[in-house]
Amino acid sequence: MRIAVLGTGQVGRRLATKLVELGHAVTMGSRTADNADATAWAAETGGTHGTFADAAAGAELVVNATSGTVSLAALTAAGADNLRGKVIVDVSNPLDFSQGFPPKLVVPEEGSVAESLQAAFPDARVVKTLNTTNNQVMVDPGRIPGKHNIFLSGDDADAKKQVTELLTGFGWAQDQLIDLGPLHTARSTEPVVLLWVSLFQALGTEDVNIGVFTP
Amino acid sequence: MRIAVLGTGQVGRRLATKLVELGHAVTMGSRTADNADATAWAAETGGTHGTFADAAAGAELVVNATSGTVSLAALTAAGADNLRGKVIVDVSNPLDFSQGFPPKLVVPEEGSVAESLQAAFPDARVVKTLNTTNNQVMVDPGRIPGKHNIFLSGDDADAKKQVTELLTGFGWAQDQLIDLGPLHTARSTEPVVLLWVSLFQALGTEDVNIGVFTP
Repeated sequence: MRIAVLGTGQVGRRLATKLVELGHAVTMGSRTADNADATAWAAETGGTHGTFADAAAGAELVVNATSGTVSLAALTAAGADNLRGKVIVDVSNPLDFSQGFPPKLVVPEEGSVAESLQAAFPDARVVKTLNTTNNQVMVDPGRIPGKHNIFLSGDDADAKKQVTELLTGFGWAQDQLIDLGPLHTARSTEPVVLLWVSLFQALGTEDVNIGVFTP
Repeated sequence: MRIAVLGTGQVGRRLATKLVELGHAVTMGSRTADNADATAWAAETGGTHGTFADAAAGAELVVNATSGTVSLAALTAAGADNLRGKVIVDVSNPLDFSQGFPPKLVVPEEGSVAESLQAAFPDARVVKTLNTTNNQVMVDPGRIPGKHNIFLSGDDADAKKQVTELLTGFGWAQDQLIDLGPLHTARSTEPVVLLWVSLFQALGTEDVNIGVFTP
């Protein structure tokens, strides 16, 4: 599949590399066409790179791996026409580091970044997922034994089905995936990154994820 | 121990009842001395009730089970003199239902309700805990099998030790308790109530809690 990964940070590079390994044609998008991280990534992996708009234009599916506080700007730069009808896999989290560590959660007017993106691009199909754990675990869940979970939120059943296929390609078992339902449930998973940060600090490992327990 | 439980909602009543059962002298505090829920609760359980200030004045330990959006007002009514030196077990969560369901998280300027209470009452010792699951599970963790977790956040080691004793009294095993460290980590657990709401809706049971997985 032709996939755009928007964002050149750790999360974007990790996801993009895994997607190349899985045989997808991946273009990494960034604000400028000559982003150093994107250029280096493309040279290393055989992927391609370009502006947010370049990446989105050629893609069948778009991964938003930008910081949640700038995601709306990034997708606006990608262009509504380049997003129309497409699945947007939103892995972003909105953290405010302006007062240093620890970060504070930013709650967009819509309730979550995912909802704000869906409102801005009503013809795209936003699915929130993978945003609750470390980037290495995202693409290699077997790093942590046990039935820990990944959540999906979205309003389009077919889009969630496509994303489920991506996730199982990453190694997530079906019974590790929890479909929380409508996209508005993204407001309940975006803050989980803060818990991940606390757990990383308290337990001293980046390989941390949560799992759901019921009787 | 003489314990004040501030708040007459489901969470407050559940905690207060369990504390009476465990042999503590519990006073339920509310805005007014004649609160109907508190009066009924006291008649049922043999506990006592009064204003926030009545309850806090006589207590060795204070449980804040008010809604996070009004906790600062409730503790202000309880009075700084009545809180001085005392452990405040803060189980509150700040949710905004003003636009209906689903609620939105409110992030206080300080980062969390717990931090805002500690800032307002620097002579008290705030410990955030129990706020991440259902009130029945809080006082009866065995309702859910497996190693699910409860988190503690606080700046005072002795206060966290006292709270740990309370939690083990409720049935939490030592290895279910995760000390996240400083009180500022409360900003990472207060949003978890939103995930609880999503899971309740998606899975159809109130007996839901999360657990932490590492290699």
